[in-house]
Amino acid sequence: MHGNSIAPSATSADLDITRYGYVDALQYSNWDRELLLQWRTGNIACVHVTVAIWEGTRDTMRTIGRWNRRFREHSDLIAPARTAEEIMQVAASGRTAVVLGFQNGSPFEDDLSTVELFHDMGVRIGQLTYNIANHIGSSCYEPIDAGLTRFGKHVVKEMNRVGMIVDLSHVGKLTTLDAIQHSERPVMVSHGNPDAVWPHARNLSDDLLRELSAHGGLLGCAPYPHLTGGDEVTGRQWAEGVAHAVTVMGIDHVGIGTDSSHKWTDEDLHHIRMGHWTHEMNYGAGSPDKPGWLPWPQFFRTPEDFPGLADSLAAVGFDEAERNKLMGGNLIRLYADGFTPRPA
Amino acid sequence: MHGNSIAPSATSADLDITRYGYVDALQYSNWDRELLLQWRTGNIACVHVTVAIWEGTRDTMRTIGRWNRRFREHSDLIAPARTAEEIMQVAASGRTAVVLGFQNGSPFEDDLSTVELFHDMGVRIGQLTYNIANHIGSSCYEPIDAGLTRFGKHVVKEMNRVGMIVDLSHVGKLTTLDAIQHSERPVMVSHGNPDAVWPHARNLSDDLLRELSAHGGLLGCAPYPHLTGGDEVTGRQWAEGVAHAVTVMGIDHVGIGTDSSHKWTDEDLHHIRMGHWTHEMNYGAGSPDKPGWLPWPQFFRTPEDFPGLADSLAAVGFDEAERNKLMGGNLIRLYADGFTPRPA
Repeated sequence: MHGNSIAPSATSADLDITRYGYVDALQYSNWDRELLLQWRTGNIACVHVTVAIWEGTRDTMRTIGRWNRRFREHSDLIAPARTAEEIMQVAASGRTAVVLGFQNGSPFEDDLSTVELFHDMGVRIGQLTYNIANHIGSSCYEPIDAGLTRFGKHVVKEMNRVGMIVDLSHVGKLTTLDAIQHSERPVMVSHGNPDAVWPHARNLSDDLLRELSAHGGLLGCAPYPHLTGGDEVTGRQWAEGVAHAVTVMGIDHVGIGTDSSHKWTDEDLHHIRMGHWTHEMNYGAGSPDKPGWLPWPQFFRTPEDFPGLADSLAAVGFDEAERNKLMGGNLIRLYADGFTPRPA
Repeated sequence: MHGNSIAPSATSADLDITRYGYVDALQYSNWDRELLLQWRTGNIACVHVTVAIWEGTRDTMRTIGRWNRRFREHSDLIAPARTAEEIMQVAASGRTAVVLGFQNGSPFEDDLSTVELFHDMGVRIGQLTYNIANHIGSSCYEPIDAGLTRFGKHVVKEMNRVGMIVDLSHVGKLTTLDAIQHSERPVMVSHGNPDAVWPHARNLSDDLLRELSAHGGLLGCAPYPHLTGGDEVTGRQWAEGVAHAVTVMGIDHVGIGTDSSHKWTDEDLHHIRMGHWTHEMNYGAGSPDKPGWLPWPQFFRTPEDFPGLADSLAAVGFDEAERNKLMGGNLIRLYADGFTPRPA
């Protein structure tokens, strides 16, 4: 059964998240209190944060443990959320709801049972690959993409069962297509852009975006400079990219995933890109002429600038109801459906 | 704050577990469907099963994963339970509720955050040590017991916070005393006996039993032959040991923890006792003249014989109301209190 829309039953006023703030479909920073305060300044009601890029099962638990400590130490600013209802409750309290997720299938190792166990620990979104091929499928940088592996199909099915949304950012194109079609619940690309507007290995063709939305899925458009034209891009130009996605996918299937990354050193970036898989220089989304952290564009320097994205969207013609969908309404509906275990 | 009684608020008819069957405070077998069927024959409404004796964090997750698979494959016989209410629901459905627990602090490694993460995964009972000293405290076999370590105190406090009952079976006597006094919630010795009746390193002195009950705790009396006089012991003799515990601790502080262990080979027993900590022969609760699995006593060969324990208890004078407390009522009240996270 492929759903062709995002949980119509969850469109009630109960999920009117933009009453409280916006939803960011992905950030990955070296968080401290200063960055958490930026969320409040930016009126961000909910953030999906990355807790694994290369880590295996055990090390991922250490990172989740650090988040659980943050939740206790900064309970005035943030709280964990495992359901859309909890997101709404946290947002209504004037804090930012934090949803845990992976940017790699590495925490699952080769053990299908870890999907349920990480769901138990609060993980609600799992990207199948980071920048290299793994036991689940191929990344967008791999020369040959053999699609979802047998284990990968089990993982997608298990994620569907327990209520963990499949994220296809960074994933190879054939693997992405396989996952969209194999998944029995809507999937997302939490941070990416239309390749037709900004050509990049991590961005998606119109055909793939159509397939994504046809199966109820969502694209989180990213102001991340490597995925647009760089730091010279204006808010209006970025919003035109969003408008392209909406033209291709429909207004109900697009959101925002900023891919905000802050307080990482160049050494951290080295690790983020090269992990443990290569001793040779690798630039990830960058290139030899753009080897380091790119400056963020003027229109989105930090998550504090999130409200300005609404202005950019307005400038290219999105009305208030459309902006509310793009700035959070579509994501909260996807979460409401996707975070729920499938009835037995 | 030391509670001096087991959750008086949870004594309602809602927790009348013996309407449905009995509660076994500990088993550790190499389970298959045949053993699960024994639970139903034995009218066992709830079993605390061991998912770690020597395993670290990662390997314990594999064992929990296997249980999650068993829950799916044998859903006609068993279901997981994380709260007393879930235990009652499963029992009312004519199945056996399974509570996950550790017989060692090894799954926590040196990482306090794992306590909460394993609670997330369904673990509700944690024994601080198995047969050797660890980073939490000392076992009952260690020549010098230095009591709870600093990390051990953090672990007990964290278990109190998240709702995981401290189990002091196998634990050294000073560490046991420390844990009873340091814990802010009632603790248990899930499987043991009064040392005054059956002298054994793993059994407990009357003084320690009094301290346990004075802090709201519970002893699960074990028919396990190493902890009584061996397989020649009769049901009546075993029940006299229970009666001694009741005399010392009070009728509200005693239950049954059979320590049933079945379908393990001699090689498994070798591992259960020696784990990875010694290359020299070690007999655990046994001895050179009793090196292997002892035969179980006639009155309790397998969990199928659980109902007969009630007859033995009747034979030494316990009336029906008292038998109901001993056969499950006391344990479900302890669980109702101890499995609940402490309010923030």
